[in-house]
Amino acid sequence: MKIVLFGSGNVAYNLAFALKENKHNIIQIIGRTEESTQNLAKKVDAAYALTYTKLIKKADIYFLAVNDDSIANIVKQDIFNNKLVVHLSGSISINVFKNKVKNYGVFYPLQTFSKNKLLQFKNIPICIEANTTGNLNKLKDLAGTGSLTDSIFTLNSIQRKKIHIAAVFASNFVNHMYTISKKYLSNNSIDFEILKPLIEQTTQKVMEQEPEKSQTGPAIRKDMKVIKSHLALLEDKPFEYEIYKILSEHIMKFYGS
Amino acid sequence: MKIVLFGSGNVAYNLAFALKENKHNIIQIIGRTEESTQNLAKKVDAAYALTYTKLIKKADIYFLAVNDDSIANIVKQDIFNNKLVVHLSGSISINVFKNKVKNYGVFYPLQTFSKNKLLQFKNIPICIEANTTGNLNKLKDLAGTGSLTDSIFTLNSIQRKKIHIAAVFASNFVNHMYTISKKYLSNNSIDFEILKPLIEQTTQKVMEQEPEKSQTGPAIRKDMKVIKSHLALLEDKPFEYEIYKILSEHIMKFYGS
Repeated sequence: MKIVLFGSGNVAYNLAFALKENKHNIIQIIGRTEESTQNLAKKVDAAYALTYTKLIKKADIYFLAVNDDSIANIVKQDIFNNKLVVHLSGSISINVFKNKVKNYGVFYPLQTFSKNKLLQFKNIPICIEANTTGNLNKLKDLAGTGSLTDSIFTLNSIQRKKIHIAAVFASNFVNHMYTISKKYLSNNSIDFEILKPLIEQTTQKVMEQEPEKSQTGPAIRKDMKVIKSHLALLEDKPFEYEIYKILSEHIMKFYGS
Repeated sequence: MKIVLFGSGNVAYNLAFALKENKHNIIQIIGRTEESTQNLAKKVDAAYALTYTKLIKKADIYFLAVNDDSIANIVKQDIFNNKLVVHLSGSISINVFKNKVKNYGVFYPLQTFSKNKLLQFKNIPICIEANTTGNLNKLKDLAGTGSLTDSIFTLNSIQRKKIHIAAVFASNFVNHMYTISKKYLSNNSIDFEILKPLIEQTTQKVMEQEPEKSQTGPAIRKDMKVIKSHLALLEDKPFEYEIYKILSEHIMKFYGS
């Protein structure tokens, strides 16, 4: 299958390298930023262009690895020649394509991507959806075992959106907790390294047992003395104070009496 | 050194096994719950007792691996015969011992412990503090390289409390994020397993680069459309709604414009 990829951000980079590594044929990258588009195109031996007018029309599938707002804009253009078009967003419904494109679907890799660390796709869950069984099968062939990942889920747009919400808590908010923690320590001249064995073990545990069975800390012990003394030290940091307070309250409520 | 250990909870279990494994001599466990105290004592070949009146007085060091409230109560008893007494709490100041005990200190292992998974102490940071240089050196000898851990930090009580606050964010709150995420998925009949590669990668990243450079998700993109659509789906869950809202606001503020 000949592939055209829209986008030159974190997701586009990771997907392009994974497709290339699995012997798929990327014929063109379409991006807005010349430097990153050209750079990616070069690395995966593809042509590149910065406008739709130069789109190569003979691809079998078009991947829209662009931000959510751009998806609707691209779909409005009448440029896809009835070929299969898929977006890679957790939050955008498949209906964004309806009445605009004939063959369409969604291909959502559930992972956090960076350009400076390209990931193996083998274990990355990919959530797919399509407007016809034929298109769904094309996505399965493209994503499936021996081709890209061993972990494919066929999910509708509502389910995918709920997974995205869960992922925001389990990844985006978790990473922000690390950031808050690191910043608080560095304000107090303590190296964040001291927390790494704890961080590693916390995540190791969730791999092995249900997280509600691993909860530790002052809130699950309903240790109001410690909670209050921590809040007292956070009083000059209104956000950290509020975050500490609401999470402690929720933990106490969650584990009841 | 002969050791007496107060406590039969998660920390006491893990410390007792680690001391035993490193050829230290635990002579007695003092606990409140007969079953867990007896069980632990048996496993580390120690005597056990359920009251202070049966305390063995000839130990060289007494470890108080009990909850924060119990520390002050135990210290009040005049039972330690001028031997070294240490507590294991992140939040309690060393001053809890002042004018009550002659030789004292703190021995705070920075880790999340469970009874059902005993940990190697080798990489666990241990934060120590003592009332004299002599006592500090005793703790260094006991904790130090080849004996228990390769990672010892001499910190005062304020620094230790700040590390504890940072640990609440980086471990207790992180684990609660996993719990919220899992519960939300299970309410929607989706298996939490689908998130595990993402969770693993998120923590892998913090081991390798500064977390503020790894942030992804709708809030750092200031994608209000996605944020609002997620909040709309969380409207019937007031706590999750509030947590999502305040964390997204803080991420947006943290990364500025």
